[in-house]
Amino acid sequence: MTTQATTTVSTYLFNRMAELGANHVFGIPGDYVLPLFDELIDGDHHSKHVLVCNELNGAYAADGYAKLSGFGAMAVTFGVGSLSTANAVGGAYADDTPMVVIAGAPSVEVITTPSRRKLHHVMGQDFDAYLKAFAPITVAAHRLMSAETAAQEIDDILRLSYQSKKPIYLEIPYDIQTAQIPVANQALDLMMHQSSGDGLKAAVAAAVAVLKESRTRTVVTGHLLQREKLIEPAKALVEMLNAGVATTFVGKISDFEGHPNAVGLYMGAMSNDATLKAVESADVSIALGMSFNEFDTGVFTGNMGTDQHNIWVDFDQVTVDGTVFDKVYLRDFLPAMISAVQSIEPGDLMVGKDDRRFCFQRSDAFAPTDAPLTIDRLFVQFANYANEGDVFYGDTGGYINGSQAEFPVGMDIYGVGNWGSLGAGFGMFTGGVFAKEAEGRRKYMISGDGAFHMTAQEVSTLIKYDIDTVIFVLDNSGYGAERQIYPGKERSYNNTPVWNYEELGSAFGGVKSVNTKGYVARTEKEMAEVLEQLSEPKGVNIVRIMLDPWDSASFNVKFSEALRH
Amino acid sequence: MTTQATTTVSTYLFNRMAELGANHVFGIPGDYVLPLFDELIDGDHHSKHVLVCNELNGAYAADGYAKLSGFGAMAVTFGVGSLSTANAVGGAYADDTPMVVIAGAPSVEVITTPSRRKLHHVMGQDFDAYLKAFAPITVAAHRLMSAETAAQEIDDILRLSYQSKKPIYLEIPYDIQTAQIPVANQALDLMMHQSSGDGLKAAVAAAVAVLKESRTRTVVTGHLLQREKLIEPAKALVEMLNAGVATTFVGKISDFEGHPNAVGLYMGAMSNDATLKAVESADVSIALGMSFNEFDTGVFTGNMGTDQHNIWVDFDQVTVDGTVFDKVYLRDFLPAMISAVQSIEPGDLMVGKDDRRFCFQRSDAFAPTDAPLTIDRLFVQFANYANEGDVFYGDTGGYINGSQAEFPVGMDIYGVGNWGSLGAGFGMFTGGVFAKEAEGRRKYMISGDGAFHMTAQEVSTLIKYDIDTVIFVLDNSGYGAERQIYPGKERSYNNTPVWNYEELGSAFGGVKSVNTKGYVARTEKEMAEVLEQLSEPKGVNIVRIMLDPWDSASFNVKFSEALRH
Repeated sequence: MTTQATTTVSTYLFNRMAELGANHVFGIPGDYVLPLFDELIDGDHHSKHVLVCNELNGAYAADGYAKLSGFGAMAVTFGVGSLSTANAVGGAYADDTPMVVIAGAPSVEVITTPSRRKLHHVMGQDFDAYLKAFAPITVAAHRLMSAETAAQEIDDILRLSYQSKKPIYLEIPYDIQTAQIPVANQALDLMMHQSSGDGLKAAVAAAVAVLKESRTRTVVTGHLLQREKLIEPAKALVEMLNAGVATTFVGKISDFEGHPNAVGLYMGAMSNDATLKAVESADVSIALGMSFNEFDTGVFTGNMGTDQHNIWVDFDQVTVDGTVFDKVYLRDFLPAMISAVQSIEPGDLMVGKDDRRFCFQRSDAFAPTDAPLTIDRLFVQFANYANEGDVFYGDTGGYINGSQAEFPVGMDIYGVGNWGSLGAGFGMFTGGVFAKEAEGRRKYMISGDGAFHMTAQEVSTLIKYDIDTVIFVLDNSGYGAERQIYPGKERSYNNTPVWNYEELGSAFGGVKSVNTKGYVARTEKEMAEVLEQLSEPKGVNIVRIMLDPWDSASFNVKFSEALRH
Repeated sequence: MTTQATTTVSTYLFNRMAELGANHVFGIPGDYVLPLFDELIDGDHHSKHVLVCNELNGAYAADGYAKLSGFGAMAVTFGVGSLSTANAVGGAYADDTPMVVIAGAPSVEVITTPSRRKLHHVMGQDFDAYLKAFAPITVAAHRLMSAETAAQEIDDILRLSYQSKKPIYLEIPYDIQTAQIPVANQALDLMMHQSSGDGLKAAVAAAVAVLKESRTRTVVTGHLLQREKLIEPAKALVEMLNAGVATTFVGKISDFEGHPNAVGLYMGAMSNDATLKAVESADVSIALGMSFNEFDTGVFTGNMGTDQHNIWVDFDQVTVDGTVFDKVYLRDFLPAMISAVQSIEPGDLMVGKDDRRFCFQRSDAFAPTDAPLTIDRLFVQFANYANEGDVFYGDTGGYINGSQAEFPVGMDIYGVGNWGSLGAGFGMFTGGVFAKEAEGRRKYMISGDGAFHMTAQEVSTLIKYDIDTVIFVLDNSGYGAERQIYPGKERSYNNTPVWNYEELGSAFGGVKSVNTKGYVARTEKEMAEVLEQLSEPKGVNIVRIMLDPWDSASFNVKFSEALRH
């Protein structure tokens, strides 16, 4: 007779999340969730706790971590903790990132016993209010109510998040957090949704028919290739077809920017001429894992498929020249296409190495001058500076501009996506630096100042955990992206306070010149010097980059105009 | 023939909110809400825009402003802005504070036209997601959809918030924000709910009957007296009955602490002996505008009414010795009682001036020493320091301790209430300082460090707007309140980073010794000197108060024990 080994519900959950890629749990403790936090620091599992400064920042961190590792987690207390994460959860939903917000809750007995008591962190007597609030912004919002069913329910909800690449919200009552349940005796069965067999066959046949007739093809790569870990097969397809390949704002994948077939970053009518031509004038355009979102389409100014054949491969649907094949998953379609196109002849490339494919193209010819910094030249400096292996995150101004820079193969850059929440990028960065995928790599953050203000206190988290990093803050004294919406018109609401960013590291608990250092760059040469000094960053370095409030990249002027409603 | 004057929907809204007490609108602009922001800075109304650093902080600010002025407002963009405010909105609900979150939204045409477009800040194509998310945490979540009905709908939703003292969420599509509508030709009819006539009569009769038979009476005052502006009638009732009067955690009203009949701050079994006796052993205890919440009842350890008569006057209900009179409003009951008790003889007081009624009692005998600061002595220093007219806000550790200090008549102190969200107090303070009720008064903030980390960037807002103020940060290197839940046990999750708070003012954009200054106090004498220097604060001053991580006030040890679930 054997006895089944047991563990706590919390540890069961941590182990399951680790299977999906989360070896860190970001979290702010609070009294309704302390047993889970005790398990987090003491339990028998491979998860580590990372203490952040507030819950929204922590949920962003979980999102940014998931973008590298595959899954993210933020643990919070009831109500005051959970509601604070809502914006980040909405962002994970909009940009297809699987993560969980785990919230402590009063005990099952308290929740199920009618009473006139008004407990702290509770809205009157409505214990279900947060479940109801999270339902519309997650793929599932659920509360465990018994130890007996906890394992099954945890498996189900984690699976749902992982399958759909969407966030979930999970409440665990105080007494359930440490209830004993059997240890899982096998890995989580992900039961990934399967494509319809007939649909897949038909979609592939339709796509192949279109491709056979073509000489020029351009693939546009989207963020779902990252989420589904399908970059390698996408590359194989590009190469077999000898197709041009473009990246996108939400899915800026450096493997396809340093690629010999790279045609630039596509953003509808905002794209560079060569990029626009390659995408919209090829015989066939192929959208791989890109959603029909505002940023990737350049505010819907794109014309993919209008005067050409078009194959659009979304998460779970393929459309060929307007014919929709439902329940055909990107992750099934891509390998099936690789087999099916073996017999198709490689096409011709439409764009040469010398064509301007990025707004901020890498250039050996760039020579820094004593001129004040401008966005147009600064981001060429960044493009030149970035190396294979680097991890970059960008926040709003930092990412909107950074997305237009040509980056080398083998680096990662993530940003605020189509959700576009100010402050999210730096929160994501705070999480991403902990992922094992970021180990041993240089880690850089580029943020606009207005965005940075929103989540800036996480500088102290980077200091606390001895992360070696550089944070570039673009100081133009305000919401620069918004200024471009009424160019030439001064609007006081766009003028944020101007911080002395170079002093923040020390104020947030670092020791000057020991584990934190501040820099100010006003000219191209000063910037070049700072970059030189920071080629192997140690400690938390903050670089304040002085820009004229009305300076804007040429592409961004066009983009801001399109964004006007 | 006269022409009806017109205005924009936004200005109509601002004018209506001003009628309720909101002459400032906190706000972070974003592209879906720019027309409203343009109106905010250019329109013909008396509202001013206050730019804060992020949306959660701004919603806290609106709440803190409402606590002084009667109504608060925060304006944000769609989704990324609105969802960030959820925690503060939940807090306003839990602690009965009327305020509005105004969110921009895509235009009516965009919202009502089916499309596969994924707009930025939108979760897929679900434009209703945020309305659904806010419904469970507000008294109403609503979107204006036509200019024709906008005025009526604005009136209805503002009225609902004001009547119920609960928050509302209001979405205004881009094109509706500047649509022209007729100017209001009369003040908003608040149509305050009326008590049932019979119910009121019966409740008063029952209360009077109980009071007639009594010699000793103690009134416990709650936060609803502040919200309903009923402090004066409550004082009249106390004096006519010659009742003792206690304050509470959520409703700490200094008029009743400096009052000759004051018996201290009541918090169930956590109360001081004299307070407990006065409240629970009087012939009659009377709860005025206090809700049955966890903090005010000392984690439900209170025994009001168990061995005595009890009159409990809640927002819209009166209970006399267990008999419930529904639809009897505090605001009707109080004046009715004042008329009805004219014939009742004044009672006897049970507590003398010399009894210990507060943990941190004002004391002429206090002499600062060279000893390191302790909570127990520090808050006596604060109690002695506070003057009539001061405005104080407290955040978690700062308020939990501050609530136990005896403060003089005529000052205001607000804190995190029963919602208890870390960081809320400083956010509220950032708002409260703008209320006209705070003009010309000294303004102080007392915050625990863990709480302060959550919303600290608002220091820059105080600097930007030239607010003269002092921020005291209790530096015990972590979540002190949580440490007391496992006394003696080191839990790493409670150890926050330690900031150099004295450097923050300058890092957040101030100029050292010009409009910001930092201080560090380690001993009682150093603290006394700092307080002396800051008796007429100019600029933004930050005082770092060094405390032992395990130091805790005696009362708090008991309270933390009770909070263990």
